[in-house]
Amino acid sequence: MLNSLFPWWRDHRPEHWGADALAGLVVSLILVPQSLAYALLAGVTPQMGLMAAIAGQLGYALLGRSPALSVGPVAIASAMTMDALSPLALPGSAQWYGMAGLLAVLSGLMLLLMGLLRLGFIAHLLSHSVIGGFISGAAVLIVLGQFKYWLNVPISGDTAYSLLQSLWNHGPSLQLAPLLLGLGCLLALIAARYLSSALPQNGVYRLSKTFPLLLLCVVTVFVHQTELSSVIPTLQSTLAWGGSTGLPHVAAIDTPTFFRLLQSAALIALIGFIESYSMAKAIGQIHSKSVDANAELRGLGAANLAAGLSGGFAVTGGLSRSVVNLEAGARSPMAGVFASLVMLLVWLGPSSLLSSLPLAALAAMIMAAVGPLINLHAFLQVWRYDRADGLGWLLTFIGVLLGGVEVGVMLGVTVALATVVMRQGRPHIAEIGCVPGTEHFRNVLYHQVQTLSNALFVRIDANLFFGNWDWIQENLQRKIQSRQTAMEHLVLSLSSVNDIDHSAYLGLREWARELHQQGVQLHLAEIKNPLLHKLRQHEANPDLPLSWAQEHLSTYQAFQGFSGRENAD
Amino acid sequence: MLNSLFPWWRDHRPEHWGADALAGLVVSLILVPQSLAYALLAGVTPQMGLMAAIAGQLGYALLGRSPALSVGPVAIASAMTMDALSPLALPGSAQWYGMAGLLAVLSGLMLLLMGLLRLGFIAHLLSHSVIGGFISGAAVLIVLGQFKYWLNVPISGDTAYSLLQSLWNHGPSLQLAPLLLGLGCLLALIAARYLSSALPQNGVYRLSKTFPLLLLCVVTVFVHQTELSSVIPTLQSTLAWGGSTGLPHVAAIDTPTFFRLLQSAALIALIGFIESYSMAKAIGQIHSKSVDANAELRGLGAANLAAGLSGGFAVTGGLSRSVVNLEAGARSPMAGVFASLVMLLVWLGPSSLLSSLPLAALAAMIMAAVGPLINLHAFLQVWRYDRADGLGWLLTFIGVLLGGVEVGVMLGVTVALATVVMRQGRPHIAEIGCVPGTEHFRNVLYHQVQTLSNALFVRIDANLFFGNWDWIQENLQRKIQSRQTAMEHLVLSLSSVNDIDHSAYLGLREWARELHQQGVQLHLAEIKNPLLHKLRQHEANPDLPLSWAQEHLSTYQAFQGFSGRENAD
Repeated sequence: MLNSLFPWWRDHRPEHWGADALAGLVVSLILVPQSLAYALLAGVTPQMGLMAAIAGQLGYALLGRSPALSVGPVAIASAMTMDALSPLALPGSAQWYGMAGLLAVLSGLMLLLMGLLRLGFIAHLLSHSVIGGFISGAAVLIVLGQFKYWLNVPISGDTAYSLLQSLWNHGPSLQLAPLLLGLGCLLALIAARYLSSALPQNGVYRLSKTFPLLLLCVVTVFVHQTELSSVIPTLQSTLAWGGSTGLPHVAAIDTPTFFRLLQSAALIALIGFIESYSMAKAIGQIHSKSVDANAELRGLGAANLAAGLSGGFAVTGGLSRSVVNLEAGARSPMAGVFASLVMLLVWLGPSSLLSSLPLAALAAMIMAAVGPLINLHAFLQVWRYDRADGLGWLLTFIGVLLGGVEVGVMLGVTVALATVVMRQGRPHIAEIGCVPGTEHFRNVLYHQVQTLSNALFVRIDANLFFGNWDWIQENLQRKIQSRQTAMEHLVLSLSSVNDIDHSAYLGLREWARELHQQGVQLHLAEIKNPLLHKLRQHEANPDLPLSWAQEHLSTYQAFQGFSGRENAD
Repeated sequence: MLNSLFPWWRDHRPEHWGADALAGLVVSLILVPQSLAYALLAGVTPQMGLMAAIAGQLGYALLGRSPALSVGPVAIASAMTMDALSPLALPGSAQWYGMAGLLAVLSGLMLLLMGLLRLGFIAHLLSHSVIGGFISGAAVLIVLGQFKYWLNVPISGDTAYSLLQSLWNHGPSLQLAPLLLGLGCLLALIAARYLSSALPQNGVYRLSKTFPLLLLCVVTVFVHQTELSSVIPTLQSTLAWGGSTGLPHVAAIDTPTFFRLLQSAALIALIGFIESYSMAKAIGQIHSKSVDANAELRGLGAANLAAGLSGGFAVTGGLSRSVVNLEAGARSPMAGVFASLVMLLVWLGPSSLLSSLPLAALAAMIMAAVGPLINLHAFLQVWRYDRADGLGWLLTFIGVLLGGVEVGVMLGVTVALATVVMRQGRPHIAEIGCVPGTEHFRNVLYHQVQTLSNALFVRIDANLFFGNWDWIQENLQRKIQSRQTAMEHLVLSLSSVNDIDHSAYLGLREWARELHQQGVQLHLAEIKNPLLHKLRQHEANPDLPLSWAQEHLSTYQAFQGFSGRENAD
């Protein structure tokens, strides 16, 4: 029972308890300010941010497996929540909070369902380069969006263009105090990160990771104690402050809105899962353990369901937090449970103090977190390695900037998949002949082989599908037309063909008819058994050979038949 | 000069003039009612429909090549225009007409650009089954949308759900007269089609294709002459009547709207091109001529540009019309020029009579045209042949019904491409050994071969890319762990690998490091030259072997090296 509900329980040793507790404490000190910052990014209340982290980690501990994945609010999923809700509800309304929770619930259900259906392979819908372009583009949008808190102007928009235009329009009315505070915080955070990376990985290093929390406390007290509190906006001044924090208020949502939420939830689930899974894989490699994509789907699904139902919003395994969790010695999701308990104390205790947090400082935290994700160096590396991959990176990056994150994800998936299909659009086709004295067939270009004047033998080195059939057909047609002697037979040796999709099947059948009119008979040889079964099953009479092409067991059989007839002529 | 502007000119013979003129006349008699009906579908004026057909055919004749493709307004592109404009402008406003023209201009420019960049392969982004699902779904939406003219109620919506809901809400206020007229027309059209298909393909058969025009004339006169004109709405009663018909009035369009139009134009261009190109290919097969996808892109681009600039809207090569054109004997795009001239007479002459056309009759024409596109039988065929293709059909069909045509296209492209990637997610991996006395390596399962205790030799029969690398790595890792003897070397024979994408490259390099920690050295053998060049170029020092793996020219070289060392141990 414990093993199926807590899949990590079997491997849990008594000595892990201490390590998990320590890692939990360290992570919670990072997770508190992150939850607040990303709640701001998603336009939800700070309480929803905290609750998402608490419930998300407990949910993940129920079904997840990764020993050090730190689940909670993250930048990209929060920005996607904001993007999804902007056209559907008013910021700060009960509708907005309810829909944010509903997005998490829907994402969670989808992830759970995909995990149960073992659809873990969806992690492979996006290539590395497309993910890079997407994250860099989203990070640029997030950074641009933060300027509203630094300048205290109502910037809005979900694309780079609209954000910049809004910034330009409101620029003249900017205020200096929050700008200076934000800039100061950002510089302090960047400096702290550089210093911390120079430290040896001991206790002091781990402690240095809690600097953002410390900075937030100091700045809050400083602003509160001085006259600045009147000119620097705090969390209390936002629409999000004072919002309801209970279960999501799913006020009557009409069906079109529900479908749009469903679509956004699917995109959040996809991106969240890819982010989580790649982190879980990195952790797994360090622990020398393979990671089960389907278990991670279920874990992340449970986390989102818990976060949504308890009044939080969409959560994912965070990259930087998980690294800290790992370095702090986490051995199981129990570390996340400990972190939840610490955060529950914050939630129950001084959460009213949060109202004095200066927005400009939170915005600086977000910028410091997502800034390094804008990785143009990675683009240059990809571009140098492979133009098609590089173009994928660039197209996705530009797509996110011009169209927003949702358009960016869809464009990215399309670009990644299209690259694969295009690379296979022109497969290798070899004209083959019989190696004298054997039953083997080899490329006529590289071997001394026997050919026939009345028949053409070719081997296609790829599966036939909609993306390459036209090209193959044109190529073969040219081969036929360029022959000096009259042709009677075209033999396709299918030894490298594992599958023929429906588009190619229709094309092949149609082409066999045309060839027949040209006086050429089509032959298929060396059809692999599963493929033969599939082709025969689809023909009218499954017991007969394919009616539109002659079947041969081997290329040699066909060769023998034609050469016999050739001799007889 | 003539040859480059009119690419069909070189093949044009004097005896073709007569054939083209006759075909042009026949097609124009079909194109007039179709242009009016599809203009209604796109929410534009009847004059815009006629102009789109006139200018579209002239534009196609300039750069296109297909001898019988009949370019003009078609159902799917018209429905997509309606779908794209609904959220952006008010039906019947100058803004709407201007944007409809702008959509055609943008589509045209994109198609021209793609043609010049030789991107004709985009026709292969969609599989046959996904196109089938898309067209069937769009046809259902179009049929549902026509009920507003039959019932004379203001039904609206761009998904099946919203259309049905709207129908349900307005159902009680339906009117009987237009319903009966529409139903009568539909039955007459269907009966005529069945009768015509039984006719021998002679002059009477060709004439029978003009029945829709005849019916429209009869019904119009009938309604006009009787008391029915007061209860049956005509074209004059629509918002589209009396709209401006000059060049598009592109009133100040803000940037976000422009980007949305750009996105819609891209989808219209893609679907329009695929529809046109597949028809052009079918015609090409009958004429035994290969079709140049890039030339078709340029031809359709010129057609759309001409249609948009002259005050029309988006055009495409129509399926049924082209068949009639072909059967009527068309030999070049000159047939389209003749059809244009006939239509220009309609435009200049009795176009004011159009105002009396009953909407219910036009709606019946649209239903009769798109009804046969709802092809559930094709779905069953696809499903029976291949589950993945069948699922693609179904997902796209449902996507169009629930999300509208734009969502449907994007979903369709994704589904088609994802099917390909998934099929390649688990490539064939063979453990190989040396055939004694030779330098050949074969699968250990099927051949008596020599293996080494300290080394594992495998051949991967697929290109390495983001969609299969994880699976390959896990598979090989399991092979390594299941071995009884201690392993020192893992040799990947890359004889079947033409390419390694950036994701797989990163994965391979990272894995080499991990293997090294496990005490296993990674070797790459038989790297094809272009791939070797790519890999070396990306490493820091291109003259050295890849720093993370040992290179070998052939698998046999590696084998010799290890077996020597094994003997020495």
